[in-house]
Amino acid sequence: MSEYDDAIRLEPGDGPTRRTGTFTEDWMIGNAVNGGFVMAAGLQALGEHLAADPAEETKHSDPVVMSAYFMTASAPGPFTVTTDLMRCGRMLSTGQISLSQPGSDGTPVERMRAIASFGNLEQVDTFKQSTPPDMPPPEQCVSSEQAPPEFLANMRFLERLDLRLDPATAGWALGKPSMKGVIRGWLRLKDAREPDTTMLMMALDALPPVAFDLGILGWTPTLEFTGHIRRRPAPGWLQVSLSSENVGGGMMEEDASIWDSTGALVAQSRQLCGVRLSTGRNG
Amino acid sequence: MSEYDDAIRLEPGDGPTRRTGTFTEDWMIGNAVNGGFVMAAGLQALGEHLAADPAEETKHSDPVVMSAYFMTASAPGPFTVTTDLMRCGRMLSTGQISLSQPGSDGTPVERMRAIASFGNLEQVDTFKQSTPPDMPPPEQCVSSEQAPPEFLANMRFLERLDLRLDPATAGWALGKPSMKGVIRGWLRLKDAREPDTTMLMMALDALPPVAFDLGILGWTPTLEFTGHIRRRPAPGWLQVSLSSENVGGGMMEEDASIWDSTGALVAQSRQLCGVRLSTGRNG
Repeated sequence: MSEYDDAIRLEPGDGPTRRTGTFTEDWMIGNAVNGGFVMAAGLQALGEHLAADPAEETKHSDPVVMSAYFMTASAPGPFTVTTDLMRCGRMLSTGQISLSQPGSDGTPVERMRAIASFGNLEQVDTFKQSTPPDMPPPEQCVSSEQAPPEFLANMRFLERLDLRLDPATAGWALGKPSMKGVIRGWLRLKDAREPDTTMLMMALDALPPVAFDLGILGWTPTLEFTGHIRRRPAPGWLQVSLSSENVGGGMMEEDASIWDSTGALVAQSRQLCGVRLSTGRNG
Repeated sequence: MSEYDDAIRLEPGDGPTRRTGTFTEDWMIGNAVNGGFVMAAGLQALGEHLAADPAEETKHSDPVVMSAYFMTASAPGPFTVTTDLMRCGRMLSTGQISLSQPGSDGTPVERMRAIASFGNLEQVDTFKQSTPPDMPPPEQCVSSEQAPPEFLANMRFLERLDLRLDPATAGWALGKPSMKGVIRGWLRLKDAREPDTTMLMMALDALPPVAFDLGILGWTPTLEFTGHIRRRPAPGWLQVSLSSENVGGGMMEEDASIWDSTGALVAQSRQLCGVRLSTGRNG
């Protein structure tokens, strides 16, 4: 079993709408569990709820869209996901997800609330799609392993990934951001576990914040994140591109697109981040 | 009072979390109440809930982000909005919104469920922003009033708007879509009511579907819609730009951006739509 599958594994909770799991330090970025991993865990729970529903017959096994609001930072330790089926339709099944962890007094503290729809992406035709960005092959890109050890010490999540950034968008690591608001890279799980539609939701939020390329090295917490999964990804490398056009009022958007190894657009997202124009690298 | 304010006015329901209103045929597009107007009504309810909350002191009076999932089409008639405050933080207050209408047997049928955050956009600095699109002034654009009467008969919502499309992106109305997946236009309310942050959420979903410019004239129902409101708009015309890059698997994204009359980026959205490659103009 891959470390990703092991980390995202859920146990039955009390009743059909609850499942439990445990976040470990391995999936932390800075002082919190990576938000993309939190979303994947929530999606996993809703997918299992749907699969167990007799009316559903598991025909909607692919997450198609998820909107997540982050209320408090997730910490290593046990978590509970509560799911609620809202509508099981012909094309999509939609439900709500609430992920919580026990607070210091044992009372549940909600980390993330989300709404998500599942569908079936087994056969997807293409009428029009955006082309993957032009970038050097992975072996000519900058591996996150090349980052300074003191940077990586706080970024255990990066050890789970094989991430190779396009040198043209990695200048921020040397104190020279392009100021274009673009970061591109190749991504796969370090343990070679192949991507699937749930993992894509995590991959949309796995790269360093695009704010880095604008010289903004402070914390940019995700306030809201919506991801669209458009296809089941082929095995192999994913190509991820981030961009941001609008920064102001203490907020910015971060748009992400992912193409699979065949060059097909497989996922997209837009998130609203808080921006604190302070120093420090607490991504 | 403007017709928009009149239409969006809510009455107290039973308890602090419920408010009621009435959809009229005036805000219909095709066979349903316009989704943007449904979102604005839901936001209005959450805003009123927050304003009435003693802990909030109405400091978060601007909607900042909303993610809405549409379960069934809204019809003219009474509706109820139930709101739930999830977290009142320093920067944002976040809550959940459920809008329902009585079904044929009187049982509530949920039309839309959403999560939204409010903040304060009174003073917003700009670090970086996208520039408004280059397009002719409103008087050189194509008014929706010029559309064939049989088209407008089914589009009462358009009578509420003064909408002027850039001729370069209006060819679809004459059977000649540009096939670029772009629609641009000037927008304001017909009764000259000036835009505010709640009205912007409706404006993000007010233009004809961008699918039209790809020659797709069938129904493209919104499955999920997320809008970001970034600034309080200045009075006057709004400039709205729609685009879509990825169409396939029965779905497409529609991205929207809005600039106010000073050229400031005030709102952005991305929605996931269903695509039925059929004929007919039931936008």
